[in-house]
Amino acid sequence: MRWKGDELMERQIYPLNAAICAAAAVVGKKESEGPLGGEFDLHDVDDRFGQDTWEKAESEMQRRALSLAIDKSGLGAEGIDLLLAGDLLNQCIGSAYGHLEFGIPFLGLYGACSTSVEGLLLASLLVGEGRASAAAVVTSSHNCAAERQYRFPIEYGGQRPPTAQWTVTGSGAFIVMPADRSPADSVLVVEGMVGRVVEKGIRDANNMGAAMAPAAIDTLTRYFDASGTCAEDFDLIVTGDLGREGSAILCELMAAEGFSLGDRHTDCGRLIYDPLTQDVHAGGSGCGCCAVVTAAHFLPRLRRGEMRDILVMATGAMMSPDSVKQGQPIPAVAHLVRLQAPRGEN
Amino acid sequence: MRWKGDELMERQIYPLNAAICAAAAVVGKKESEGPLGGEFDLHDVDDRFGQDTWEKAESEMQRRALSLAIDKSGLGAEGIDLLLAGDLLNQCIGSAYGHLEFGIPFLGLYGACSTSVEGLLLASLLVGEGRASAAAVVTSSHNCAAERQYRFPIEYGGQRPPTAQWTVTGSGAFIVMPADRSPADSVLVVEGMVGRVVEKGIRDANNMGAAMAPAAIDTLTRYFDASGTCAEDFDLIVTGDLGREGSAILCELMAAEGFSLGDRHTDCGRLIYDPLTQDVHAGGSGCGCCAVVTAAHFLPRLRRGEMRDILVMATGAMMSPDSVKQGQPIPAVAHLVRLQAPRGEN
Repeated sequence: MRWKGDELMERQIYPLNAAICAAAAVVGKKESEGPLGGEFDLHDVDDRFGQDTWEKAESEMQRRALSLAIDKSGLGAEGIDLLLAGDLLNQCIGSAYGHLEFGIPFLGLYGACSTSVEGLLLASLLVGEGRASAAAVVTSSHNCAAERQYRFPIEYGGQRPPTAQWTVTGSGAFIVMPADRSPADSVLVVEGMVGRVVEKGIRDANNMGAAMAPAAIDTLTRYFDASGTCAEDFDLIVTGDLGREGSAILCELMAAEGFSLGDRHTDCGRLIYDPLTQDVHAGGSGCGCCAVVTAAHFLPRLRRGEMRDILVMATGAMMSPDSVKQGQPIPAVAHLVRLQAPRGEN
Repeated sequence: MRWKGDELMERQIYPLNAAICAAAAVVGKKESEGPLGGEFDLHDVDDRFGQDTWEKAESEMQRRALSLAIDKSGLGAEGIDLLLAGDLLNQCIGSAYGHLEFGIPFLGLYGACSTSVEGLLLASLLVGEGRASAAAVVTSSHNCAAERQYRFPIEYGGQRPPTAQWTVTGSGAFIVMPADRSPADSVLVVEGMVGRVVEKGIRDANNMGAAMAPAAIDTLTRYFDASGTCAEDFDLIVTGDLGREGSAILCELMAAEGFSLGDRHTDCGRLIYDPLTQDVHAGGSGCGCCAVVTAAHFLPRLRRGEMRDILVMATGAMMSPDSVKQGQPIPAVAHLVRLQAPRGEN
C-alpha cells in the first residue's frame, strides 16, 4: 500500500486555522425517512423542489442549502467572499446554476463524492490565511439525476447488485471562517490532507466502495504515519460513502497495514439509510452524502461537545460512464479534514 | 453591469507572491499547423497520442504536458506537493486518468474553459502562503472528445454556424513556486481575481463567445475599479477563448463601461488558428486553449522581457448539453491573473 511520493508525507498534513460557523443540509424524501431524517434542515416530499427537471432540482437544493447556511451564519451573502462548490452532474451544472443569485466569487471543484471535504479543506486554507473573511462550501447529488446520467433513468427500473450504492438526494452547505474570528460555538477545522488519485484495478461501476477504499486507505495511512496518531486518538473516523462493501475493505486493509480502526470507524453512506427497511443495498453515496451527514449529524455533536475530535474523509470515484465503457479501471481520491469541538468544550 | 456584492470589490483582488518556473504545451495536428505551431513543445500528427479513444488521448496529453513541465522545472515529481487539474470531459476524466503515475496530491477543478487560470490562481495562493513548495496546474481539451460529448461525433460531419468555435486539442501544464524561491527567469504571478458566475440570457450553445463575454466584463471592470488601473497600464489584456464574436462584445461593452481596451486586447482563441486557412469560424476554445497559448506564447515573451505586465483572463461557459436541452441560458465565469516579467527584466 505504498505509492510514489511517500517521502513527502511529513509536509502533506496542512495545519488549518479555520472554523465552520454554520451549516445546512437539504435532502429528499427518502433521506428524510431514514435514521437521520429529523436532523436535516429541510426536505421535499417529491424530490423536485418545485422544478421541472431533476437537474434543476439539484441546483435548487444547492441554492436552498447555501441560503439556509448563510442565514444561520448571520453574515448575509455580502459577507461571504468566496464560494467553492461542486457536484456530480456533467459539467457540474448543479453548482453553476444553483448560485447565480448570490453573486459570490466562485471556484468550481470536481472531486466526485470527495468534493465536500476538498471544498472544506481549500476554504479552510484560504480563510485561515486571511484570503477570505468567510467562504462557503456547497456540494450536492440527486438520485434521479445521477441514475439517469450514470446508469439508467429511474423509469427503466434497472436491477441493482448488492454492492451497488444509492445516490443520496441532498445538498450540504458550510460557512467557514478564520478560527479566531468565528463565533465561540464554531466547530474547528484544525488539519487537512489532500488525497492522491489511486487506482487498484477495480472495474465494476456497481461496486464503488471497492474502488474508493484504496484511496481512503492511502490518505488515512499517510495521515496516521505523518501525524503519529492512530484510530484510538479520535472519537470517530468518518468516511464519506464507502458503504458496507468499501467500509469492510477499509477496516480489513487498514488492520493489515497495522492501523486497526476498531470501533472508531463509521461511514456517512451507512448512517443515512436504514438497511433493513430502505432497500439501498450497500448504502448511500454521492456528492451530497458526506456533506449532509457531516452538516446535520456530526457538526451539531461536535458543537455540543458530545464528540471532541474526529476525522472526516470523503472519498470520490473519479470515473465517468465513458471511461467505464472504454474498459478503464476506476480511480479514486480521498480528502481528509480533522474537526474538533469548540475550544470551550475541548 | 453591476451585480450584488460590488461593495466587496476592494478585497477581491488577491495579492499573490508566486511565480511560474516552468510550463509546457502539448497540442494536436491542427494547432501545430496554426500561427503558433512552432512555439508548442509537442504535437501528435493524428491527435491520438498513441491511444485508442479520444478521451484516453486527452488524458495522455495531460500526462505528457505535466511530465514535460516537471522535466523543465528540474524539480522531479517528488518536488511537486500539489496538483490542480481539470478538463471539459464529463467527470473530468482527462485529469483523473492523466496523472495516476505521478502520485501527487490532487485537487480537481471544474471551471470549464476558465480552469487554467482558476488553477494558476489557487496554486499561486497556496504556494505563496507556504502551503506547497511547488504546485502543478494542468488543463486540457480535445476537439474530437469535446465534439462528441457536446455536439456530434466528428464522423457525423455536422454543420457549424459562423459564431461556433473550434475546441482546441491541447494540454498546458504550469509549475508554480513561491516567488522568492523560484529561479530568476520565472514569470511572476502578482495578482489574481476570482470570477463570479454571470448569466445574461444567452441560450445559443453555438455562440459561447456571447455567453462568456459578460463574465469577462464583470471580472475586468471589477479588477479595473478595484485596482485603479486601465487597459493602458498593461502590455496586453489576454482573454482565454472569447473568439471573434465574444471579443467584439467584450471590447464594445467595456468601452460602454468607460474602459476602452483600445489595441491592448487579444484572445487566445483568435491567436491559435489562422482564420483564413484553418476554417475555425469564430476561433479556438476549450480548457486547453488559454493554457497552451499562455504556456507557449505569452510566458516566453514575458520571460524574455518582450512584455512586462499582462492580464490573463480565462473564461468558461458553465453549461452542459443537458442544461441546454432543458432550455436553460448559459452561465459563465472568468478568472484573472496578472503576470509580470521576471524582476530583473522589469
